[in-house]
Amino acid sequence: MTTGPHVGLLAEVTRGNRVESRHYGRAVVVDAHGKVVWSCGAVDESVYPRSTVKALLALELVASGAAERLNLSNQALALACASHGGEPQHVEVAQNMLSKVGLGVNALECGAHWPTYEPAARALAAHSQEACAFHNNCSGKHAGLICLACDQGVDIKNYIDPSHEIQRRVTNVLEMMTKTPHGSENRGTDGCSMPTYAVPLTALAHAFARFGTGQSMPEQYAKASEVLREAVAQNPFLVAGSSRYDTIIMNNFKTRAFVKMGAEGVMVASLPELGLGIAIKIDDGANRAAEVAMSSLLSHFGAESLRKTAEDDAVLQKTSAQILKNWRGVTVGEIRPAQWV
Amino acid sequence: MTTGPHVGLLAEVTRGNRVESRHYGRAVVVDAHGKVVWSCGAVDESVYPRSTVKALLALELVASGAAERLNLSNQALALACASHGGEPQHVEVAQNMLSKVGLGVNALECGAHWPTYEPAARALAAHSQEACAFHNNCSGKHAGLICLACDQGVDIKNYIDPSHEIQRRVTNVLEMMTKTPHGSENRGTDGCSMPTYAVPLTALAHAFARFGTGQSMPEQYAKASEVLREAVAQNPFLVAGSSRYDTIIMNNFKTRAFVKMGAEGVMVASLPELGLGIAIKIDDGANRAAEVAMSSLLSHFGAESLRKTAEDDAVLQKTSAQILKNWRGVTVGEIRPAQWV
Repeated sequence: MTTGPHVGLLAEVTRGNRVESRHYGRAVVVDAHGKVVWSCGAVDESVYPRSTVKALLALELVASGAAERLNLSNQALALACASHGGEPQHVEVAQNMLSKVGLGVNALECGAHWPTYEPAARALAAHSQEACAFHNNCSGKHAGLICLACDQGVDIKNYIDPSHEIQRRVTNVLEMMTKTPHGSENRGTDGCSMPTYAVPLTALAHAFARFGTGQSMPEQYAKASEVLREAVAQNPFLVAGSSRYDTIIMNNFKTRAFVKMGAEGVMVASLPELGLGIAIKIDDGANRAAEVAMSSLLSHFGAESLRKTAEDDAVLQKTSAQILKNWRGVTVGEIRPAQWV
Repeated sequence: MTTGPHVGLLAEVTRGNRVESRHYGRAVVVDAHGKVVWSCGAVDESVYPRSTVKALLALELVASGAAERLNLSNQALALACASHGGEPQHVEVAQNMLSKVGLGVNALECGAHWPTYEPAARALAAHSQEACAFHNNCSGKHAGLICLACDQGVDIKNYIDPSHEIQRRVTNVLEMMTKTPHGSENRGTDGCSMPTYAVPLTALAHAFARFGTGQSMPEQYAKASEVLREAVAQNPFLVAGSSRYDTIIMNNFKTRAFVKMGAEGVMVASLPELGLGIAIKIDDGANRAAEVAMSSLLSHFGAESLRKTAEDDAVLQKTSAQILKNWRGVTVGEIRPAQWV
């Protein structure tokens, strides 16, 4: 029998009076100096951060001055950090971003997929429309890179390629933030065709502790972090969408907590008031487990900043023990964090 | 750190040159006498079998003579064993089943949900239609129980309740097949509101070894097993649907392999020619992992029956190492069984 990397039980799914499924993984809480406050499992192993680093990829758009020169709204900046559900408002903002540089849907190299928010997909179908690249959950990130390229006078063609000038620039920012070399040896390809570079989970958490504080960052990037955090806090719907975890959390906590999910069970958080960063990787890739584990960690390690009101507690409670109902609305079980968290 | 039940690595998900996610679980291969041929993990622990036992729940419909008296087609019997995608043909067969006893959609107590096969959901929306209980993936199982009740002169009201006469009868068959007591202590509620009773994974595999052979079963149930296996082999599309694992496997192997998925990463198989039953439970509930693990086990332990032609090998190969492509069709990784399987 093969033994996997060192992981801990992070979440359980119950049905009736039994645990039906279990989720193991790794998680780490780090301060802005890089000190590990708490960890579970082998957190120095590398993971693909996937969509969790979209806000770091957007730093260059702001720090370079491109966002200001192009007069990009806070909505646009929030969408650049998003994995959105393809709802009409998401599509509209993505369109507006590309219109700033005189481009349309054909400029996007992310590929098309139906909105992940199913009611939006059915609404499109009901209007005899097809899915396009604007509905791709990453269209805001791609539109942001295209805006950056146009502002900098760089040809946008093949902007998803690791060797493209724009990729080189944003990868430099990822290296600065994670203090981890990014190259072909740790590179995979993401669902939207852009590269994703594996980094140690602790380095990912540290990057988000700094994203939340500006600690040890060149001034223009520290300022850009603040601008992006503010943009996201003003527009939590644009970062994810209806019924989505990131949106629910940031709707309540605004600038007190930046959280971002990524595919395959990765999740990060920045807690600016406390100077902490959190990163989670569920070993089996289940986002449902990352959500309850994150709320449990926010509740515990973020208490001083995130448990100020009854609403704060209610949001953390509801998202850390998620009730499972069946198709008739009957409660059949719950997804809950492991007791030791 | 909490240690979970004893499990083994069953499947890995790769991206680039790295393993991105891992799925642990339990699996067991049993012969019709109950002898364990091979196992991985704590296979005597109980799991909720969920939809894997639909064919066992349908035995009474055939063994009682109800199916014959109501002149139910093989299509109807296949749908009674199904977790279908809510495609038009599935809905049509479910409607036909209820029409045999003069009933309609309101008789179903499974609740409504949109077709799980998304193109079918979008097609419904495009025709300004709403989802109904016929689209529920369990509508065939429910229609089968309603047919049984009507044939037996039992009031159908509340047929989903564990204490209802029809539940009592089909639960008796589950007890006979799994040799495990079914009561409130091992009962959970399924997504379709019917009870699901936890049984040891080995008992589940043994039940399907017998389902495939009729071994140690009263004659009318042994005959009913054969009727159901034939009905499913003739209609693999009705048991699942477009692009679905069970359908792909049985389209090729017909009566040589009965396979059935269940929610939360449970999967069973019967190999009638070899007298074997297989049961898998992925600890984290991921069906993608159960699929590749099952194909790997079918390929290894079912070789004498299931590897007779080039098509056989091609189907097993394609389903045991599933290529992952992104939204532009670029290969980014694969889901593969653990090497030791």
